[in-house]
Amino acid sequence: MTHKAKKVVIITEKLILDQVLKIVEAAGATGYTVTSAGGKGSRNVRSEARTTVVEAFSNVKIEVIVGDATAAERIATEVADTCFGNYSGVTYLQDVEILRPHKFTRTS
Amino acid sequence: MTHKAKKVVIITEKLILDQVLKIVEAAGATGYTVTSAGGKGSRNVRSEARTTVVEAFSNVKIEVIVGDATAAERIATEVADTCFGNYSGVTYLQDVEILRPHKFTRTS
Amino acid sequence: MTHKAKKVVIITEKLILDQVLKIVEAAGATGYTVTSAGGKGSRNVRSEARTTVVEAFSNVKIEVIVGDATAAERIATEVADTCFGNYSGVTYLQDVEILRPHKFTRTS
Repeated sequence: MTHKAKKVVIITEKLILDQVLKIVEAAGATGYTVTSAGGKGSRNVRSEARTTVVEAFSNVKIEVIVGDATAAERIATEVADTCFGNYSGVTYLQDVEILRPHKFTRTS
Repeated sequence: MTHKAKKVVIITEKLILDQVLKIVEAAGATGYTVTSAGGKGSRNVRSEARTTVVEAFSNVKIEVIVGDATAAERIATEVADTCFGNYSGVTYLQDVEILRPHKFTRTS
Repeated sequence: MTHKAKKVVIITEKLILDQVLKIVEAAGATGYTVTSAGGKGSRNVRSEARTTVVEAFSNVKIEVIVGDATAAERIATEVADTCFGNYSGVTYLQDVEILRPHKFTRTS
Protein backbone atom coordinates (compact mmCIF):
# COMPACT_ATOMS: atom_id res chain seq x y z
CA MET A 1 0.00 0.00 0.00
CA THR A 2 1.31 3.42 -0.92
CA HIS A 3 0.65 6.93 0.39
CA LYS A 4 0.40 10.13 -1.60
CA ALA A 5 3.13 12.75 -1.10
CA LYS A 6 4.65 15.67 -3.03
CA LYS A 7 8.09 16.05 -4.53
CA VAL A 8 9.62 19.51 -4.90
CA VAL A 9 12.24 19.75 -7.65
CA ILE A 10 14.59 22.75 -7.70
CA ILE A 11 17.13 23.27 -10.48
CA THR A 12 19.48 26.18 -9.92
CA GLU A 13 23.12 27.32 -9.87
CA LYS A 14 25.54 25.22 -7.81
CA LEU A 15 26.74 28.45 -6.19
CA ILE A 16 23.62 28.75 -4.07
CA LEU A 17 23.13 25.09 -3.16
CA ASP A 18 23.80 25.71 0.51
CA GLN A 19 21.35 28.61 0.63
CA VAL A 20 18.63 26.48 -0.96
CA LEU A 21 19.26 23.52 1.36
CA LYS A 22 18.93 25.80 4.40
CA ILE A 23 15.46 26.80 3.21
CA VAL A 24 14.57 23.15 2.57
CA GLU A 25 15.71 22.06 6.03
CA ALA A 26 14.08 25.00 7.78
CA ALA A 27 10.80 23.94 6.17
CA GLY A 28 11.02 20.65 8.05
CA ALA A 29 12.09 18.27 5.27
CA THR A 30 13.81 15.16 6.62
CA GLY A 31 15.94 14.52 3.55
CA TYR A 32 16.86 15.55 0.04
CA THR A 33 18.72 14.30 -3.02
CA VAL A 34 21.17 16.37 -5.08
CA THR A 35 22.46 15.61 -8.57
CA SER A 36 24.86 17.54 -10.77
CA ALA A 37 23.22 19.01 -13.86
CA GLY A 38 23.82 21.15 -16.89
CA GLY A 39 21.27 22.92 -18.99
CA LYS A 40 19.78 26.06 -20.29
CA GLY A 41 17.10 28.27 -18.78
CA SER A 42 14.85 30.98 -20.09
CA ARG A 43 17.48 33.51 -19.03
CA ASN A 44 20.51 32.04 -20.84
CA VAL A 45 22.18 33.94 -23.63
CA ARG A 46 21.10 32.30 -26.85
CA SER A 47 24.40 32.58 -28.64
CA GLU A 48 26.20 30.40 -26.11
CA ALA A 49 27.22 27.03 -27.53
CA ARG A 50 24.82 24.24 -26.60
CA THR A 51 27.44 21.69 -25.59
CA THR A 52 29.43 24.22 -23.55
CA VAL A 53 26.38 25.08 -21.49
CA VAL A 54 25.54 21.46 -20.85
CA GLU A 55 29.01 20.14 -20.18
CA ALA A 56 29.86 22.76 -17.56
CA PHE A 57 27.43 20.98 -15.21
CA SER A 58 27.28 24.14 -13.15
CA ASN A 59 23.74 23.52 -11.99
CA VAL A 60 22.30 21.27 -9.32
CA LYS A 61 19.00 19.45 -9.22
CA ILE A 62 17.60 19.19 -5.70
CA GLU A 63 14.71 16.83 -4.95
CA VAL A 64 12.77 16.92 -1.70
CA ILE A 65 9.80 14.76 -0.72
CA VAL A 66 7.32 16.15 1.75
CA GLY A 67 4.06 14.81 3.08
CA ASP A 68 1.61 17.40 1.78
CA ALA A 69 1.06 19.89 -1.01
CA THR A 70 1.08 22.91 1.31
CA ALA A 71 4.60 22.22 2.57
CA ALA A 72 5.79 21.53 -0.97
CA GLU A 73 4.36 24.74 -2.33
CA ARG A 74 5.83 26.73 0.58
CA ILE A 75 9.35 25.41 -0.15
CA ALA A 76 9.02 26.09 -3.88
CA THR A 77 7.69 29.60 -3.33
CA GLU A 78 10.30 30.52 -0.75
CA VAL A 79 13.18 29.27 -2.89
CA ALA A 80 11.85 31.13 -5.94
CA ASP A 81 11.24 34.36 -4.01
CA THR A 82 14.55 34.28 -2.13
CA CYS A 83 16.91 33.01 -4.81
CA PHE A 84 15.58 33.41 -8.34
CA GLY A 85 15.76 37.21 -8.40
CA ASN A 86 19.55 37.02 -8.50
CA TYR A 87 20.25 33.50 -9.71
CA SER A 88 18.68 31.51 -12.51
CA GLY A 89 16.54 28.60 -11.47
CA VAL A 90 13.31 26.77 -11.86
CA THR A 91 11.14 24.82 -9.46
CA TYR A 92 8.18 22.49 -9.88
CA LEU A 93 6.11 19.96 -7.95
CA GLN A 94 5.23 16.35 -8.73
CA ASP A 95 2.93 13.76 -7.21
CA VAL A 96 4.66 10.72 -5.76
CA GLU A 97 3.55 7.61 -3.90
CA ILE A 98 5.66 6.57 -0.94
CA LEU A 99 5.81 3.35 1.06
CA ARG A 100 6.71 4.55 4.54
CA PRO A 101 5.24 7.96 5.37
CA HIS A 102 6.97 8.23 8.77
CA LYS A 103 10.33 8.63 7.01
CA PHE A 104 9.20 11.94 5.54
CA THR A 105 7.89 13.54 8.72
CA ARG A 106 10.20 15.16 11.23
CA THR A 107 9.47 13.66 14.65
CA SER A 108 11.42 16.10 16.84
CA MET B 1 -0.93 28.67 -6.62
CA THR B 2 0.47 26.26 -9.15
CA HIS B 3 -0.23 25.63 -12.85
CA LYS B 4 -0.28 22.28 -14.64
CA ALA B 5 2.45 21.57 -17.18
CA LYS B 6 4.14 18.56 -18.78
CA LYS B 7 7.69 17.30 -18.42
CA VAL B 8 9.29 15.34 -21.25
CA VAL B 9 12.09 13.01 -20.15
CA ILE B 10 14.49 11.63 -22.76
CA ILE B 11 17.22 9.12 -21.87
CA THR B 12 19.58 8.32 -24.70
CA GLU B 13 23.20 8.03 -25.78
CA LYS B 14 25.46 11.00 -25.02
CA LEU B 15 26.61 10.88 -28.64
CA ILE B 16 23.36 12.36 -29.92
CA LEU B 17 22.76 14.94 -27.18
CA ASP B 18 23.20 17.84 -29.57
CA GLN B 19 20.80 16.35 -32.11
CA VAL B 20 18.15 15.85 -29.42
CA LEU B 21 18.59 19.37 -28.03
CA LYS B 22 18.10 20.83 -31.51
CA ILE B 23 14.72 19.09 -31.72
CA VAL B 24 13.81 20.30 -28.23
CA GLU B 25 14.70 23.91 -29.04
CA ALA B 26 13.01 23.84 -32.43
CA ALA B 27 9.82 22.77 -30.66
CA GLY B 28 9.86 26.05 -28.74
CA ALA B 29 11.06 24.90 -25.30
CA THR B 30 12.63 27.74 -23.31
CA GLY B 31 14.97 25.55 -21.27
CA TYR B 32 16.12 22.05 -20.41
CA THR B 33 18.16 20.16 -17.83
CA VAL B 34 20.76 17.51 -18.64
CA THR B 35 22.27 14.95 -16.27
CA SER B 36 24.83 12.24 -16.90
CA ALA B 37 23.43 8.73 -16.58
CA GLY B 38 24.26 5.06 -16.93
CA GLY B 39 21.90 2.19 -17.36
CA LYS B 40 20.55 -0.59 -19.42
CA GLY B 41 17.81 -0.57 -22.04
CA SER B 42 15.70 -3.19 -23.70
CA ARG B 43 18.31 -3.39 -26.46
CA ASN B 44 21.44 -4.01 -24.33
CA VAL B 45 23.32 -7.27 -24.61
CA ARG B 46 22.41 -9.31 -21.55
CA SER B 47 25.83 -10.78 -20.95
CA GLU B 48 27.43 -7.40 -20.36
CA ALA B 49 28.47 -6.85 -16.74
CA ARG B 50 25.96 -4.79 -14.78
CA THR B 51 28.47 -2.47 -13.12
CA THR B 52 30.37 -1.84 -16.36
CA VAL B 53 27.21 -0.70 -18.08
CA VAL B 54 26.26 1.59 -15.25
CA GLU B 55 29.65 3.08 -14.52
CA ALA B 56 30.35 4.07 -18.09
CA PHE B 57 27.74 6.85 -17.69
CA SER B 58 27.53 7.04 -21.45
CA ASN B 59 23.91 8.12 -21.43
CA VAL B 60 22.25 11.46 -20.79
CA LYS B 61 18.91 12.24 -19.22
CA ILE B 62 17.30 15.32 -20.73
CA GLU B 63 14.32 16.96 -19.00
CA VAL B 64 12.17 19.60 -20.66
CA ILE B 65 9.12 21.34 -19.22
CA VAL B 66 6.49 22.62 -21.63
CA GLY B 67 3.13 24.22 -21.08
CA ASP B 68 0.84 21.65 -22.62
CA ALA B 69 0.50 17.95 -23.39
CA THR B 70 0.42 18.46 -27.15
CA ALA B 71 3.84 20.12 -27.25
CA ALA B 72 5.25 17.48 -24.90
CA GLU B 73 3.96 14.62 -27.00
CA ARG B 74 5.27 16.23 -30.18
CA ILE B 75 8.80 16.48 -28.74
CA ALA B 76 8.74 12.90 -27.46
CA THR B 77 7.43 11.54 -30.76
CA GLU B 78 9.89 13.48 -32.88
CA VAL B 79 12.88 12.44 -30.78
CA ALA B 80 11.79 8.80 -30.85
CA ASP B 81 11.11 8.82 -34.60
CA THR B 82 14.29 10.69 -35.53
CA CYS B 83 16.80 9.16 -33.12
CA PHE B 84 15.70 5.82 -31.70
CA GLY B 85 15.96 3.90 -34.95
CA ASN B 86 19.74 4.15 -34.82
CA TYR B 87 20.45 4.90 -31.17
CA SER B 88 19.04 3.38 -28.03
CA GLY B 89 16.79 5.59 -25.97
CA VAL B 90 13.54 5.94 -24.15
CA THR B 91 11.19 8.85 -23.61
CA TYR B 92 8.22 9.45 -21.32
CA LEU B 93 5.99 12.25 -20.06
CA GLN B 94 5.09 13.32 -16.52
CA ASP B 95 2.64 15.78 -15.01
CA VAL B 96 4.24 18.66 -13.13
CA GLU B 97 2.94 21.75 -11.35
CA ILE B 98 4.84 24.96 -11.95
CA LEU B 99 4.82 28.30 -10.16
CA ARG B 100 5.54 30.74 -12.96
CA PRO B 101 4.06 29.68 -16.30
CA HIS B 102 5.59 32.60 -18.23
CA LYS B 103 9.05 31.08 -17.76
CA PHE B 104 8.07 28.09 -19.88
CA THR B 105 6.58 29.98 -22.83
CA ARG B 106 8.73 31.48 -25.51
CA THR B 107 7.80 35.13 -25.90
CA SER B 108 9.60 35.96 -29.13
CA MET C 1 -0.97 8.57 -28.15
CA THR C 2 0.55 7.69 -24.83
CA HIS C 3 0.08 4.78 -22.41
CA LYS C 4 0.09 4.90 -18.63
CA ALA C 5 2.96 3.22 -16.79
CA LYS C 6 4.70 3.47 -13.42
CA LYS C 7 8.19 4.63 -12.56
CA VAL C 8 9.94 3.25 -9.49
CA VAL C 9 12.64 5.55 -8.07
CA ILE C 10 15.17 4.14 -5.61
CA ILE C 11 17.79 6.34 -3.93
CA THR C 12 20.32 4.45 -1.86
CA GLU C 13 24.01 3.90 -1.12
CA LYS C 14 26.26 3.20 -4.12
CA LEU C 15 27.63 0.21 -2.22
CA ILE C 16 24.49 -1.83 -2.82
CA LEU C 17 23.76 -0.80 -6.41
CA ASP C 18 24.41 -4.29 -7.72
CA GLN C 19 22.15 -5.89 -5.13
CA VAL C 20 19.32 -3.48 -6.00
CA LEU C 21 19.74 -4.01 -9.75
CA LYS C 22 19.50 -7.78 -9.28
CA ILE C 23 16.11 -7.30 -7.59
CA VAL C 24 15.00 -4.96 -10.38
CA GLU C 25 16.02 -7.40 -13.12
CA ALA C 26 14.54 -10.40 -11.33
CA ALA C 27 11.22 -8.54 -11.24
CA GLY C 28 11.21 -8.51 -15.04
CA ALA C 29 12.16 -4.90 -15.77
CA THR C 30 13.64 -4.48 -19.25
CA GLY C 31 15.81 -1.48 -18.41
CA TYR C 32 16.82 1.08 -15.84
CA THR C 33 18.66 4.37 -15.52
CA VAL C 34 21.26 5.17 -12.86
CA THR C 35 22.56 8.60 -11.86
CA SER C 36 25.12 9.58 -9.24
CA ALA C 37 23.64 11.51 -6.33
CA GLY C 38 24.43 13.08 -2.99
CA GLY C 39 22.02 13.97 -0.25
CA LYS C 40 20.78 13.51 3.23
CA GLY C 41 18.22 11.06 4.55
CA SER C 42 16.15 10.81 7.69
CA ARG C 43 18.91 8.69 9.18
CA ASN C 44 21.88 11.03 8.63
CA VAL C 45 23.72 12.54 11.57
CA ARG C 46 22.61 16.15 11.79
CA SER C 47 25.99 17.58 12.73
CA GLU C 48 27.57 16.50 9.45
CA ALA C 49 28.39 19.43 7.18
CA ARG C 50 25.80 19.96 4.45
CA THR C 51 28.23 20.39 1.57
CA THR C 52 30.35 17.40 2.62
CA VAL C 53 27.33 15.12 2.54
CA VAL C 54 26.23 16.39 -0.85
CA GLU C 55 29.61 16.50 -2.56
CA ALA C 56 30.56 12.96 -1.66
CA PHE C 57 27.98 11.75 -4.23
CA SER C 58 28.02 8.39 -2.51
CA ASN C 59 24.42 7.64 -3.39
CA VAL C 60 22.79 6.43 -6.57
CA LYS C 61 19.37 7.19 -7.98
CA ILE C 62 17.91 4.24 -9.87
CA GLU C 63 14.86 4.72 -12.10
CA VAL C 64 12.87 1.83 -13.52
CA ILE C 65 9.75 2.00 -15.69
CA VAL C 66 7.32 -0.88 -15.56
CA GLY C 67 3.95 -1.43 -17.15
CA ASP C 68 1.72 -1.61 -14.12
CA ALA C 69 1.37 -0.46 -10.52
CA THR C 70 1.54 -3.97 -9.07
CA ALA C 71 4.98 -4.67 -10.54
CA ALA C 72 6.19 -1.22 -9.44
CA GLU C 73 4.99 -1.69 -5.90
CA ARG C 74 6.54 -5.16 -5.73
CA ILE C 75 9.97 -3.82 -6.73
CA ALA C 76 9.76 -0.93 -4.26
CA THR C 77 8.65 -3.18 -1.41
CA GLU C 78 11.26 -5.83 -2.08
CA VAL C 79 14.11 -3.30 -2.28
CA ALA C 80 12.95 -1.61 0.94
CA ASP C 81 12.52 -4.90 2.80
CA THR C 82 15.78 -6.44 1.59
CA CYS C 83 18.11 -3.43 1.67
CA PHE C 84 16.85 -0.61 3.87
CA GLY C 85 17.29 -2.45 7.17
CA ASN C 86 21.06 -2.20 6.82
CA TYR C 87 21.54 0.62 4.33
CA SER C 88 19.90 4.01 4.10
CA GLY C 89 17.57 4.52 1.21
CA VAL C 90 14.22 5.72 0.03
CA THR C 91 11.88 4.58 -2.72
CA TYR C 92 8.78 6.07 -4.32
CA LEU C 93 6.53 5.62 -7.35
CA GLN C 94 5.41 8.08 -10.02
CA ASP C 95 2.92 8.01 -12.87
CA VAL C 96 4.44 8.28 -16.33
CA GLU C 97 3.09 8.22 -19.87
CA ILE C 98 5.07 6.20 -22.39
CA LEU C 99 4.99 6.09 -26.18
CA ARG C 100 5.93 2.50 -26.91
CA PRO C 101 4.65 0.05 -24.30
CA HIS C 102 6.33 -3.00 -25.88
CA LYS C 103 9.74 -1.62 -24.87
CA PHE C 104 8.86 -2.02 -21.21
CA THR C 105 7.61 -5.60 -21.34
CA ARG C 106 9.97 -8.53 -21.35
CA THR C 107 9.13 -10.75 -24.30
CA SER C 108 11.17 -13.83 -23.45
